[in-house]
Amino acid sequence: MKCISLLGATGSIGTQTLDIIREHSEEFKLNAISVGRNLELTRKIILEFKPELVSVSEKASAETLRAEFPNLNISYGQGGLVEVATFHKSDILVNAILGSVGLQPTLQAIEAKKTIAIANKETLVTAGHLVMDAAEKHGVTLLPVDSEHSAIYQALQGEKEKNIEKLILTASGGSFRDRTRAELEHVTVEQALNHPNWSMGAKITIDSATMMNKGLEVIEAHWLFAMPYEKIEVLLHKESIIHSMIEFHDSSIIAQLGTPDMRVPIQYALTYPDRLPLPSANRLNLAEIGQLNFKKMDFERFRCLQFAFEAGKKGGTLPTVLNAANEAAVEAFLSGKITFLQIEDLIEKALENHHSIQTPSLSLIQEVDQETRTYVNSLLK
Amino acid sequence: MKCISLLGATGSIGTQTLDIIREHSEEFKLNAISVGRNLELTRKIILEFKPELVSVSEKASAETLRAEFPNLNISYGQGGLVEVATFHKSDILVNAILGSVGLQPTLQAIEAKKTIAIANKETLVTAGHLVMDAAEKHGVTLLPVDSEHSAIYQALQGEKEKNIEKLILTASGGSFRDRTRAELEHVTVEQALNHPNWSMGAKITIDSATMMNKGLEVIEAHWLFAMPYEKIEVLLHKESIIHSMIEFHDSSIIAQLGTPDMRVPIQYALTYPDRLPLPSANRLNLAEIGQLNFKKMDFERFRCLQFAFEAGKKGGTLPTVLNAANEAAVEAFLSGKITFLQIEDLIEKALENHHSIQTPSLSLIQEVDQETRTYVNSLLK
Repeated sequence: MKCISLLGATGSIGTQTLDIIREHSEEFKLNAISVGRNLELTRKIILEFKPELVSVSEKASAETLRAEFPNLNISYGQGGLVEVATFHKSDILVNAILGSVGLQPTLQAIEAKKTIAIANKETLVTAGHLVMDAAEKHGVTLLPVDSEHSAIYQALQGEKEKNIEKLILTASGGSFRDRTRAELEHVTVEQALNHPNWSMGAKITIDSATMMNKGLEVIEAHWLFAMPYEKIEVLLHKESIIHSMIEFHDSSIIAQLGTPDMRVPIQYALTYPDRLPLPSANRLNLAEIGQLNFKKMDFERFRCLQFAFEAGKKGGTLPTVLNAANEAAVEAFLSGKITFLQIEDLIEKALENHHSIQTPSLSLIQEVDQETRTYVNSLLK
Repeated sequence: MKCISLLGATGSIGTQTLDIIREHSEEFKLNAISVGRNLELTRKIILEFKPELVSVSEKASAETLRAEFPNLNISYGQGGLVEVATFHKSDILVNAILGSVGLQPTLQAIEAKKTIAIANKETLVTAGHLVMDAAEKHGVTLLPVDSEHSAIYQALQGEKEKNIEKLILTASGGSFRDRTRAELEHVTVEQALNHPNWSMGAKITIDSATMMNKGLEVIEAHWLFAMPYEKIEVLLHKESIIHSMIEFHDSSIIAQLGTPDMRVPIQYALTYPDRLPLPSANRLNLAEIGQLNFKKMDFERFRCLQFAFEAGKKGGTLPTVLNAANEAAVEAFLSGKITFLQIEDLIEKALENHHSIQTPSLSLIQEVDQETRTYVNSLLK
């Protein structure tokens, strides 16, 4: 029985993690969760899974729940996230929280020697060097939950990293993949949220449309697989069936395929190094699909991907700026303050405005993160 | 340094094996070879690779070579094949000989505890139970050289066989993949030999056109991976880019991809469990290819595949009959004695004419093999 702490239990990855725990209740036990503001769903999770520790965002919500569940350990805020991440009974932390707020709980869970299943890509983007160093120091395994990184992790089993020629991350192209830049001028939030293949949270769906999601994944892959940026390639593959590939130096390519279903990589991270059946998964039928398509990535069409490669290669605090500016800009787009293409403009300005500092500490990263958000918000006025 | 015995050195797989040994002369040493009647190429191989033992088909050729290379150990016939296969200095036997004649040398090499890189699929088709039992008994590894089985072997690394849901073998469809059965009535030998993707020997190219090649591969996969026939699927994939796949019970699929280049699986078998660079390989560029296509297998269009599944499931001596009848029929087609579609008819008649015997011994297999050839040839008159 593996005992699980889950950050972001009411989100898209969080609820799918709960599906997996439910399907394999003899294998997994949910011990501790963090949630946001969705108290209704939180109550259901508490009643069904009976976790011992629950952390909410706000103090007021914590008090509400304490009144309802007097025997439950209830916490809140950043401190609560860390308590959940390091809960003493848990073997594994599923970090499915959104944004760079996931960084500190991850680092503390690593110190507490928890296996980390990481869906929170911002953690690796803003502080990959700190996270990977800590994981190495404490002998902790970092298991990717993103479908692309899980694909690479699966393809890497039984292989040697020294034999890798390159990683090939596939990209669906997101909700606007068939539009030109000119056609992007007047797209709406609603249109941007309509992803053709994956059903995901709002932030990541917008990131898919701008291709920033793939940019963040490139940086994540750089850290997870200790791969120089020159050896990471992005390929347009609109069906999202080949989730990613490794090319070895003998020219052989190992790929992982499947229907777009996040429960598969989530379950893989939980069952690793074994697998368990997933009878409810929608199985891939290539004869029915008939055709898989591939196109060269267009860095001029998708400028955010270019920003990410550049920020990643230069390193230091630039990836933190990239990520924080993107989070602030996407928030501004979702709340109707800017147009879709202004997301790119804001990120570009934030990157140009910043003087990068190499190998930043956690506190410097947090400072740069805040400064960047403040800077981007100042441009909105 | 791995020392290699190579059966079938002048054939298509044989010469490509020599290419790999040449590319990695610090890793591999060619110790012993068998050849057919191509003495000109044999002389070149002797001069370049300096093997210690050479076996030819005919006694006369052996005498010719002995006169030319007085210091070389030269053998011939079936005994010579066994001598090469079991040569005391060799670590690994690459069995790239054609047809069921490869069976006895394989069995004896297993007894001599050589690692077996097997390109000779007829060995496993006619005597899979004997070969796999012997390999298990002597703790010998059987490494597939066929691109499909190599793909599955590569995809299986780091995975557990118990988690396999099914194997998916891909099939290009061969030289007549776009023709209906009616259009097959009057096809010529020359047309049949024109494979769209792979450059291979004549026998296997005809087997690709009839789909018997995939049928033999299904039986081979059954033995190599201990997989029931119900869990082996064949998928039409005309580009031959995805060489085969494993679907696991969590719905995740691991596939191996590459350009059609037999040197890659040959080298993989020689370097296993490691890989070595293959700079001269033609690397896969999916963006350039643009599209991969898949179609459901049509068992009425490709009757030989149906024969193979049935013979495999019934087992006993039937797969021996299937293989021997096919070898005799393809020979008859190549020498202009029958039409293309008569290949199927002859195989069907041979299968119907035979009363299968379960778990046959080696001598019974050899007897049934001979009887079947005699029977098929009797139908030609």
